[in-house]
Amino acid sequence: MRSFLGRDILSLKDFERSEFFRVFEVSEYMEPIARNRKNVDMLKEKTLVTAFYQPSTRTRLAHEAAMLRLGGKVTGFADPKMTRAGDFYRESIKDTVRMLEYYGDVIVMRHFQQGAPAEAAKWASIPIINGGDGWGEHPTQILTDLYTVYREKGRIDGLTWVAVGDMRMRTMHSLAYALTKFDCPITFIAPPEMSLTDEFKAEIKEMGLNFKEAEHIEQVIHEADVILVEPVVQPDYTKPRDERKGDVGMTPSNYKITKELLETKAKPDAILLHSFPRMDEIPTDVDSTRWARYWQEAFNGVVVRMALLALVLGAME
Amino acid sequence: MRSFLGRDILSLKDFERSEFFRVFEVSEYMEPIARNRKNVDMLKEKTLVTAFYQPSTRTRLAHEAAMLRLGGKVTGFADPKMTRAGDFYRESIKDTVRMLEYYGDVIVMRHFQQGAPAEAAKWASIPIINGGDGWGEHPTQILTDLYTVYREKGRIDGLTWVAVGDMRMRTMHSLAYALTKFDCPITFIAPPEMSLTDEFKAEIKEMGLNFKEAEHIEQVIHEADVILVEPVVQPDYTKPRDERKGDVGMTPSNYKITKELLETKAKPDAILLHSFPRMDEIPTDVDSTRWARYWQEAFNGVVVRMALLALVLGAME
Amino acid sequence: MRSFLGRDILSLKDFERSEFFRVFEVSEYMEPIARNRKNVDMLKEKTLVTAFYQPSTRTRLAHEAAMLRLGGKVTGFADPKMTRAGDFYRESIKDTVRMLEYYGDVIVMRHFQQGAPAEAAKWASIPIINGGDGWGEHPTQILTDLYTVYREKGRIDGLTWVAVGDMRMRTMHSLAYALTKFDCPITFIAPPEMSLTDEFKAEIKEMGLNFKEAEHIEQVIHEADVILVEPVVQPDYTKPRDERKGDVGMTPSNYKITKELLETKAKPDAILLHSFPRMDEIPTDVDSTRWARYWQEAFNGVVVRMALLALVLGAME
Repeated sequence: MRSFLGRDILSLKDFERSEFFRVFEVSEYMEPIARNRKNVDMLKEKTLVTAFYQPSTRTRLAHEAAMLRLGGKVTGFADPKMTRAGDFYRESIKDTVRMLEYYGDVIVMRHFQQGAPAEAAKWASIPIINGGDGWGEHPTQILTDLYTVYREKGRIDGLTWVAVGDMRMRTMHSLAYALTKFDCPITFIAPPEMSLTDEFKAEIKEMGLNFKEAEHIEQVIHEADVILVEPVVQPDYTKPRDERKGDVGMTPSNYKITKELLETKAKPDAILLHSFPRMDEIPTDVDSTRWARYWQEAFNGVVVRMALLALVLGAME
Repeated sequence: MRSFLGRDILSLKDFERSEFFRVFEVSEYMEPIARNRKNVDMLKEKTLVTAFYQPSTRTRLAHEAAMLRLGGKVTGFADPKMTRAGDFYRESIKDTVRMLEYYGDVIVMRHFQQGAPAEAAKWASIPIINGGDGWGEHPTQILTDLYTVYREKGRIDGLTWVAVGDMRMRTMHSLAYALTKFDCPITFIAPPEMSLTDEFKAEIKEMGLNFKEAEHIEQVIHEADVILVEPVVQPDYTKPRDERKGDVGMTPSNYKITKELLETKAKPDAILLHSFPRMDEIPTDVDSTRWARYWQEAFNGVVVRMALLALVLGAME
Repeated sequence: MRSFLGRDILSLKDFERSEFFRVFEVSEYMEPIARNRKNVDMLKEKTLVTAFYQPSTRTRLAHEAAMLRLGGKVTGFADPKMTRAGDFYRESIKDTVRMLEYYGDVIVMRHFQQGAPAEAAKWASIPIINGGDGWGEHPTQILTDLYTVYREKGRIDGLTWVAVGDMRMRTMHSLAYALTKFDCPITFIAPPEMSLTDEFKAEIKEMGLNFKEAEHIEQVIHEADVILVEPVVQPDYTKPRDERKGDVGMTPSNYKITKELLETKAKPDAILLHSFPRMDEIPTDVDSTRWARYWQEAFNGVVVRMALLALVLGAME
């Protein structure tokens, strides 16, 4: 296994099985620290730089919270508009990163442009963590999902997944790449205009992923050990907030996980994941059912980032 | 007295007399730490999450400064627009809070919607501090005002208050609730369209507050031991900045505390409070008079938040 | 030499030679701390307040990174819009600063209005660092430039400077004031509409600066030991981003430092500085030449702020 020290976390495509398990192990080590609610000094000497070119709440705050829990420090920007007007949109990634690398010891970057974190990693002397890049990948989110499964089920191999949502999204790409390293059949369910591209399907097939596609969650939910859901309906941001009430309640039943569906069709020990925010694809009455694990996933979001930060900064080997 | 450990600070309506005094005692303990300008380690293991859905300077920074002075850490958002576009406006308080509670150990929330912090408290496993909720309450500001009075006068009971400003505002609600626990007559002075609602007047009367209303500050300033002022004129934000010069200098004399008025009518040991920012309701030549205590109030704003954070996080009992 | 303890850093006009060298000495002391990438505890007890009324990336983050590297804490605002709507634009500097001074132990302020940090310093009981004030000054940036020269050349006196860019800018003012204290001839090169004002020229002549003006960089580059460059072309922010592609590649050759120019005309040991972001006045193929020192300058930007913070806060004498 390659060392994580100084390493960029850009994609799950290049993760090895043993590396996934190392992240899980270190996450398990971090869990009591997070649960005890006591910041420790492990990364006291280190600073995280957040470089968010797109708004984010969970990804940015989970990284910040993880860094602070380990005693580290945080600086950066949550919004490029807070920087010199528009400059960031013009300034090359190289120029920006060769400045940011002096402001801390690891950078987490979200960018509207696919590949921007990889470009940053070419120039930076410190590790870059991809916090989501356009239609690219979102590796730390999927590591969180996999860790949640690992903790709940005690294993990854041999579990059947169903993923619902917009398959062009970065989380889905990271998920597909990750599962190629495991024995995990997966069914993708998306509206036709949001389905996996032929090119991507060819790639993951080549990489050995055992996958199929379905039209309606009802057809396959009975097979699932893990149900991972993303919204397929987005708010119509061109309308004023008050006028877009209608976009709630519009998720077609094909992509909706209702309590009734779970109770009648799902395996009793299946687990339901969602990285949030949600529209109405998971109604709130599901929250208190045996299947819901999305709050656990939110907690694990901090734990896994604690593990990643400790690993790339060399506090854990 | 109930323990403050793990407690939400949502409203002053449910504060007991002994609890006010406990906050004042702990604030007095904190004062030298703030005055010495040396951060200590008391809350080193704790993280404050700021959740500001509306812009704020004093409330947000006073909480952050207090947390940092006690060695704690801070994460969060100062502006919901820095979060995924509009999501926070759509996402339920429950969904948001069940994420934020993993990012730290106490949340201070400002929200445009009355009751939002109370809703958050229903779901959170960590304390929620109300940093101002719509037309609701602003408990930490009024605790700061009361502490300032306590420090200057050595007591709360037996002092007469005059409050000037928009009586629909959250600070006025918190003030009225707080004074129901003390022997403090109060006169409210506001433009008719900004006066206390009949419903609220009935409530505080029922709670035993000894209050009256007046039309002009000149009529009652001679009675006051404490004069608490808020603006009644707001900038016309629909106009460009340069064109709205006119909105300065427009506070009617009924609601204006001039140096001349103080010198001719006020008790020599009355104290004048204002949480700022101000329009022209207190002209700047009042700043160096014997009555002005608003800078002291700004200092106490940090001290009281240090006390509250230490109490709800269990560093002080 | 006056003590730096408690001192404001507002302008380089009032810096003495010995004070420049003291800043350089302390910066040299800080360099290994920055290079080792290990935060220390030197300013553990102190909090920096950032008050940025205009967007900034480098200046704000370099100060934050410096404070964190020395174990200090940071609060503040990166954008006045995150504060109560427009209030900051209306609120007097006095009112704002008499609040901010309680939130930390040193304030770094960027303001759109020349003289705002000096006004702040009149009222604050803690040091104010000018992070750039309108057309005024930008002392910490020029201290960074001078330190970079000092480290590369081992001296300041006796070196010839060429400065290219908009001479009305604050960095140019700070540079001119600084060089009056040294034996450093300088040539300014700017488009006519961006040249030094007659008034400013009279002032720096009176102060003894040995300067001249030139029209084209080619005329004088052969004399330069230090070439300091700023953009003369600004993006046309009135146009949507996609439509203003044209503004790249428009820097006239008079103000452009190309690789060919350097290779044919520059001294082999001249150094090239730019505080970034850049337009096309330094093409990227210059980055790997012997002349480029702007990445070193970015690193030094943190080092010099570490020195300044340690000095004004009394951690170093």
